[in-house]
Amino acid sequence: MPTPPARNAILLISCPDQPGLVSAVADFIRRNSGNILDLEQHVDSELGAFFMRVEWELEGFGLSDGDLASLFQADVAAPLDMRWQLHYSDRRPRVAIFATREGHCLYDLLSRHQAGELDIDIPLIVGNREDLRGAADRFGIPFHHFPITRENKARQEEAEIALLEEHDIDTIVLARYMQILSDGFAARYPNQIINIHHSFLPAFAGARPYHQAYQRGVKVIGATSHYVTAELDEGPIIAQDVIPVSHRESVADFIRHGKDLEKVVLARAVWAHARRKVLVHENKTIVFS
Amino acid sequence: MPTPPARNAILLISCPDQPGLVSAVADFIRRNSGNILDLEQHVDSELGAFFMRVEWELEGFGLSDGDLASLFQADVAAPLDMRWQLHYSDRRPRVAIFATREGHCLYDLLSRHQAGELDIDIPLIVGNREDLRGAADRFGIPFHHFPITRENKARQEEAEIALLEEHDIDTIVLARYMQILSDGFAARYPNQIINIHHSFLPAFAGARPYHQAYQRGVKVIGATSHYVTAELDEGPIIAQDVIPVSHRESVADFIRHGKDLEKVVLARAVWAHARRKVLVHENKTIVFS
Amino acid sequence: MPTPPARNAILLISCPDQPGLVSAVADFIRRNSGNILDLEQHVDSELGAFFMRVEWELEGFGLSDGDLASLFQADVAAPLDMRWQLHYSDRRPRVAIFATREGHCLYDLLSRHQAGELDIDIPLIVGNREDLRGAADRFGIPFHHFPITRENKARQEEAEIALLEEHDIDTIVLARYMQILSDGFAARYPNQIINIHHSFLPAFAGARPYHQAYQRGVKVIGATSHYVTAELDEGPIIAQDVIPVSHRESVADFIRHGKDLEKVVLARAVWAHARRKVLVHENKTIVFS
Amino acid sequence: MPTPPARNAILLISCPDQPGLVSAVADFIRRNSGNILDLEQHVDSELGAFFMRVEWELEGFGLSDGDLASLFQADVAAPLDMRWQLHYSDRRPRVAIFATREGHCLYDLLSRHQAGELDIDIPLIVGNREDLRGAADRFGIPFHHFPITRENKARQEEAEIALLEEHDIDTIVLARYMQILSDGFAARYPNQIINIHHSFLPAFAGARPYHQAYQRGVKVIGATSHYVTAELDEGPIIAQDVIPVSHRESVADFIRHGKDLEKVVLARAVWAHARRKVLVHENKTIVFS
Repeated sequence: MPTPPARNAILLISCPDQPGLVSAVADFIRRNSGNILDLEQHVDSELGAFFMRVEWELEGFGLSDGDLASLFQADVAAPLDMRWQLHYSDRRPRVAIFATREGHCLYDLLSRHQAGELDIDIPLIVGNREDLRGAADRFGIPFHHFPITRENKARQEEAEIALLEEHDIDTIVLARYMQILSDGFAARYPNQIINIHHSFLPAFAGARPYHQAYQRGVKVIGATSHYVTAELDEGPIIAQDVIPVSHRESVADFIRHGKDLEKVVLARAVWAHARRKVLVHENKTIVFS
Repeated sequence: MPTPPARNAILLISCPDQPGLVSAVADFIRRNSGNILDLEQHVDSELGAFFMRVEWELEGFGLSDGDLASLFQADVAAPLDMRWQLHYSDRRPRVAIFATREGHCLYDLLSRHQAGELDIDIPLIVGNREDLRGAADRFGIPFHHFPITRENKARQEEAEIALLEEHDIDTIVLARYMQILSDGFAARYPNQIINIHHSFLPAFAGARPYHQAYQRGVKVIGATSHYVTAELDEGPIIAQDVIPVSHRESVADFIRHGKDLEKVVLARAVWAHARRKVLVHENKTIVFS
Repeated sequence: MPTPPARNAILLISCPDQPGLVSAVADFIRRNSGNILDLEQHVDSELGAFFMRVEWELEGFGLSDGDLASLFQADVAAPLDMRWQLHYSDRRPRVAIFATREGHCLYDLLSRHQAGELDIDIPLIVGNREDLRGAADRFGIPFHHFPITRENKARQEEAEIALLEEHDIDTIVLARYMQILSDGFAARYPNQIINIHHSFLPAFAGARPYHQAYQRGVKVIGATSHYVTAELDEGPIIAQDVIPVSHRESVADFIRHGKDLEKVVLARAVWAHARRKVLVHENKTIVFS
Repeated sequence: MPTPPARNAILLISCPDQPGLVSAVADFIRRNSGNILDLEQHVDSELGAFFMRVEWELEGFGLSDGDLASLFQADVAAPLDMRWQLHYSDRRPRVAIFATREGHCLYDLLSRHQAGELDIDIPLIVGNREDLRGAADRFGIPFHHFPITRENKARQEEAEIALLEEHDIDTIVLARYMQILSDGFAARYPNQIINIHHSFLPAFAGARPYHQAYQRGVKVIGATSHYVTAELDEGPIIAQDVIPVSHRESVADFIRHGKDLEKVVLARAVWAHARRKVLVHENKTIVFS
């Protein structure tokens, strides 16, 4: 039985690049007796932008949570024009998984969660169909059915949001959820809704990408996990992967191989998100390692 | 010094699928004392279409080249509604390489040719700029400079075609040739012009694909070799490959890694074409192994 | 609800290469009114060996199951010196999954089975520890606990075999089963025990392969699924896959990424085995597509 | 025509991990008016080791080359127990390429060099056979023939070393050089001899790896570039890559595909070495991006 992991703080920072940024942050942590576990930075020299993720132990740290935020803002962030997010490792993302009929991504996420691979809580699952209620039941997670029609969509989304808020959900994972969220819904959860698209975006956006890929005769197929924005299939890409195919593969083979890609790529994105390793900047991601 | 390879015949066949196609072809070859070296078939069950490549030794074969073609047509192809091409291994593709300024694909093809990796002849190289004359010189291959402007394009293409015909060129390889061929030029060489596009098509068709890819924030980049058709970047794909990238790579890194992809993918396509392993059907390829 | 799939017959054949093998088999099927759905052949010209897989519909076929086997042997196989196996698509492999503590492969197989991705039955799961009983319970499959010690190993394996025989098990999948089967056990199920090894074999055979890989400083890690033979980690390889790593990845990262490889590679092998697409010849596999 | 690149300094540093290392180095550079272009660090938390690469512009830098080294040692390195190397971007590696008969890696390096892809000088090429003299001639690089027999090996290596010293060679690239260097030779150029091995090491070390791989029936083949040490095929790995294969590929296909891997993997290693991006620590590499 592993002991509960130590409580850590994680800062994600972006700002205009300039000398001394790493030192300023590291010094702040150290002079408050924080032990840095991991520090990774990235400079986009084209944009002149600086990005950083730093994680440190809170055991023995000299500041309370409240003081940490306010002092960091006053002493470091404000003078250096930083935008930042502060996370605590014991406040795991609370995730609602949305699914429809294809269960491979849902089962994969639930299995990983069960095995302790993902640092998330999954208070509930939403289906626009009943098909995957059984999967939720197997893992003992409440399943909520919200059938969506053109007529009831606005009302159902309102009900979904009420449910999400009631359960303090901060992250939504669309695990092959075959309904387009309204712009309003998407805008409400910026960089908090993770989708898996079953193609190598931007190729084959939209419907039936494997059929499109087969039709085009490509020799490689892929899957893409991205944050959802108002522009369909245009949000920041978190993870992608591909496999080679040939004329020997049918559309059914594309779909079969594609499912393996989809679940692995989606899980990688959820893992990185849950570990607070993803920063979004101008519709692109920095995914710290 | 290897002895000259034996002379083989190669048939590429496509027709509506039905029972007995393989037997019909194989029996024709065998009853004329041909020794089959390689036989590969593919059935596209969605299209109900049958594709086949068969290669056999001509030593000891009972038919002359002329009789072979006419008898095969009369005895096998006509009754079974087959479209077919007949190639001889000692009539290698005569290839003109077109290039502009980037030399990596040109150098790679010339090096492979020099090393005996590619079963082609390269009687000439065409440049719309002078930049790569030196590369041609190093390998002792005549270099022809055809500068292209909007005004002279039609006239220059005519001159190019005259040159190609004079040298019995049957295959054109666009080795990062930065000029769009006119529709008329492309139509004159159907499935005989091989291009390398520096993206994973259909993503990032058109100009500056690495910049597009960088802008979109993809996590995988690719290269695509395809036959040229009147539709730009829409021709049948022969080969594709990809490599993973991350936020750490700049556009310059994309370009650097991409060059390695481009030259390998283009060479694979040229190799398959030269070995008569590529069949085109409805804008898709069957690439026999 | 899909209608039950049609009943098909599948022949896997190997024999010395010679002309007319495909015709002989195809003609046998056709003159008994069989409709061939899929036919794939492979010639290993180095070994002079011929391999073939053919699948055809039994609806309307002119022979009973018993006559099929005896007539094929008499009319085709015996004259041509063929070794062959005959399978029926409605007699799915009956699979026992053996597992220990790591659940990712087990969960993945159970999820795929549940989703209808794998044409197998799973009458039971064997654990040498109790850890994964919960996974079996979730999917409603009986779990049998056989703790193994040096002293009781022979006796426990006998009990396991009795259980397997009682349930007509013909295929055993070692889903990260951390016990070495005795030679006698392995010999009893030739080419019927599928293992997943968490390295790119033959690199890093034996224990703790990710630690070995990390120690060696490789830039790519892999996973290998193979049939179990008396030689540990030396059996015929069915499937392999790899991912790139760098100095940035720790052993924990190797393990995390490796799990994704393992479950996908094992599932590919089980799928191919279940679809009767794997032929073993001299410790190598032909995996038909 | 590009202007000559600015002159930069590059520091490669390794030391026991402790707080403040990045700051100490960065502050030293900045207080001497250096403009940091690139800074990358890596902490191996298992080993408690810290690694760093920093590159800065020398234009406007306040220290002469001589003062830089001595002051850095006194002010930063000594107190922090650092091992370090200092490079200048205008002192490019002087590379001797050793080759035998297979020309693909040699041609590839020469083509890249010609195209300006590699920041190296190539004053000479060494062959233990005459086969590749023509390649050297094409690119105008002196070719030296040192035939090696068991009897003359020690004497010939002495002559080679004399030649290398005469030309100030600091890096040797074994471009499919089919002679094992003596331990003494290898020891003389620690982490300065780059080899390409045509397998995914540690699998298939030694002779004829593609034949070994074919024999074993692997489904993936690879190539490995590494620094040469006294232990054959055991030196620190710089780069590796792989491609999938199947039963359809013959040994000849393995070799053909493998050549593409070899030349790309070797070139990647040479590029990283030339850009001073490789640090060796306990037989493993950190390859900065």
